[in-house]
Amino acid sequence: MKISNTFVHHVYFWLNNPGSKEDLEKLVQGLEKLSAVKTIQSFHIGKPADTNREVIETTYAASWLVLFNNPEDQESYQVDPIHLDFVKECSHLWNKVIVYDSINAG
Amino acid sequence: MKISNTFVHHVYFWLNNPGSKEDLEKLVQGLEKLSAVKTIQSFHIGKPADTNREVIETTYAASWLVLFNNPEDQESYQVDPIHLDFVKECSHLWNKVIVYDSINAG
Repeated sequence: MKISNTFVHHVYFWLNNPGSKEDLEKLVQGLEKLSAVKTIQSFHIGKPADTNREVIETTYAASWLVLFNNPEDQESYQVDPIHLDFVKECSHLWNKVIVYDSINAG
Repeated sequence: MKISNTFVHHVYFWLNNPGSKEDLEKLVQGLEKLSAVKTIQSFHIGKPADTNREVIETTYAASWLVLFNNPEDQESYQVDPIHLDFVKECSHLWNKVIVYDSINAG
């Protein structure tokens, strides 16, 4: 089934303390709270699977996949008070973030 | 809504000819065919949005997001004849691929 949402926002986090289960749990709890933002259509909070081929990036600690209906909803999410609170409460946990924002191709 | 699938497979492609709309179209068509693999629950074929902050990776040409019900389904997808055909027909188009495989966290 083709995902009909037109904006896919996928964030990968690397922790300051990569081995800390406690810090990962704090981040996951923060993302659960973040999922309350109203423009989020659906979301997935992930950690690396145990697949391991050369092309697979396995070093991140957590992934945050969010589907929005349109680019404008993603923009409003960036400045949503719930998102600003998340950054305030959790940004000390990570030292690197990579974001991929995709719209429908073709 | 929390995505209930337990395996998220996200692939980012960089083209040999980054500016070629024709090559991008070929890749997108290949991904459309690839979406016929039976274990795929849902998928999204993307290209970079026009967002542009420091943490955003914008240099890839296409993204391929696939949701599977479990890790085993992703394994069988890797060796599915439709997937092998896709690699045979399209791999000359790209020179770099990064894959993120995630399972549910928390």
